[in-house]
Amino acid sequence: MTKESIVQAFMQLQDDICQALEMADGQGRFQEDAWERPGGGGGRSRVIRGAAIEKGGVNFSEVHGDLSTAAAKALKLGEGGAFFATGVSIVLHPKNPWVPIIHMNVRYFEMDQDRWWFGGGIDLTPHYVFPEDAQWFHQQLATVCDAAHSDYYDRFKKWADDYFFIRHRDETRGVGGIFFDRLGPQESLPKEELWKFTLNVGQTFAPTYTELLKRHRDDSYSDLEMDWQRLRRGRYVEFNLVWDRGTKFGLETNGRTESILMSLPPLAGWEYSHAPTANSREEHTLALLKKDIDWLSNPPKSY
Amino acid sequence: MTKESIVQAFMQLQDDICQALEMADGQGRFQEDAWERPGGGGGRSRVIRGAAIEKGGVNFSEVHGDLSTAAAKALKLGEGGAFFATGVSIVLHPKNPWVPIIHMNVRYFEMDQDRWWFGGGIDLTPHYVFPEDAQWFHQQLATVCDAAHSDYYDRFKKWADDYFFIRHRDETRGVGGIFFDRLGPQESLPKEELWKFTLNVGQTFAPTYTELLKRHRDDSYSDLEMDWQRLRRGRYVEFNLVWDRGTKFGLETNGRTESILMSLPPLAGWEYSHAPTANSREEHTLALLKKDIDWLSNPPKSY
Repeated sequence: MTKESIVQAFMQLQDDICQALEMADGQGRFQEDAWERPGGGGGRSRVIRGAAIEKGGVNFSEVHGDLSTAAAKALKLGEGGAFFATGVSIVLHPKNPWVPIIHMNVRYFEMDQDRWWFGGGIDLTPHYVFPEDAQWFHQQLATVCDAAHSDYYDRFKKWADDYFFIRHRDETRGVGGIFFDRLGPQESLPKEELWKFTLNVGQTFAPTYTELLKRHRDDSYSDLEMDWQRLRRGRYVEFNLVWDRGTKFGLETNGRTESILMSLPPLAGWEYSHAPTANSREEHTLALLKKDIDWLSNPPKSY
Repeated sequence: MTKESIVQAFMQLQDDICQALEMADGQGRFQEDAWERPGGGGGRSRVIRGAAIEKGGVNFSEVHGDLSTAAAKALKLGEGGAFFATGVSIVLHPKNPWVPIIHMNVRYFEMDQDRWWFGGGIDLTPHYVFPEDAQWFHQQLATVCDAAHSDYYDRFKKWADDYFFIRHRDETRGVGGIFFDRLGPQESLPKEELWKFTLNVGQTFAPTYTELLKRHRDDSYSDLEMDWQRLRRGRYVEFNLVWDRGTKFGLETNGRTESILMSLPPLAGWEYSHAPTANSREEHTLALLKKDIDWLSNPPKSY
């Protein structure tokens, strides 16, 4: 496949996902903000404020330009040169606290014949963890992974546990998912298969999230759950601004701030040393924000 | 002065400030959370949720231990060894959006005879900038600075402009104030005078903030101003989590998370590409979030 065909497929993916999300939301419509990057390329940022999706962003970008040798070395890429990068990235903050926050990203980077790779992932951040939902979510990801390579699910599930970790809280961001980066010429799969896998990850996003939305969007909630949702969103902000390498890299290298920070919630809260009530759903959730839970084959009991 | 006398003075400063803030608030009372640091030392974190101060933290800490040579080199300190650090740090988020957010910090660090310094500062982050308040605020700081050294106000005002800058937004955090760090043996003032200056900065905090609180705490506001307050608080979060060296250092080196993140607001918001109405107070405020404004001698016109 060519760079151009990847760009076309990612733009189509953005269109398909936006359409599926609008249908699922039933009320909100995406607003598009097309932008150009001074150094080359640009993007289409799309945001929705809907009935079920309180704030969501579905972003496509395709940027290119020259990477200095200094910047290339900082990225462990050797000599500098022309680069090309394209991807789709999504964060959705639902209105109903029983519905999880979700993030998805797929991307392709290329410098030359020997320096190219795919990256991406999907991870789920429930305000309240339901083990049966987490298991179902991981099953969807395992299906996509298994179609590509028998090692992928285990490998990328662990990568997500390690990546989506809020070190200063000793908490995972949520129930994880899959994360992969720099899948390039050193991989056992040929480039065409890596691309197919990456695109499949993107395509599994909409059916997976709309199912989770359907399961909980009509569950009733009170101020207690809304307060907790704001605190969990606060943790989401902490992860993205303190630990997320993509966000940090973007902000430090003069990326497009509004597109990078589309991931932040509409409203978030912080309370000093908040501790949930004993045996509450909030406490059960905190206890499940750990690495290395086998959601697929041995999920914790539901509560 | 000895380390012990500095510790005593900082604890007294914390007490005095908490008392003054409780009096000014009229309703809230500080709750203290005393903590110990596994490696040595500890602190007294105090938080208030009051009538005028929606969320405030006044933190004292005194920590000591051994600094590895690797850590010392990373801090440009030469060889490792025993270290000692103490300070008071404050962030207050007022309920009323016409009242500014404020931050104050004073600190002392020591390794040995030749490696010690004072640091600190006060800076003001109005949700709505009132040039006359900003001017008055800078006058208070200039008075403290001028009593120590004729260069200090200009030097430390510029330092604050550079430090409290949200690079990815091209905005200052607020109207600045003063910031200083590593005032040690290389300074023209003797240690005793540097200490006196640092303590004076701390002591000027309470009368300065209570005056600003008094000026605006009873001003009426609507949803419009509350929405704007949440967006400005969002920027405060961005600065603290992305750019503030103290916060980053604390979170990355396993500091006490709850004390470090006491600075975060009770509630904050983000909206994609928010733009204030033309000629609104919000737009006037944004236009004043710039470096190098001479608040003291040539403040912008009030609006």
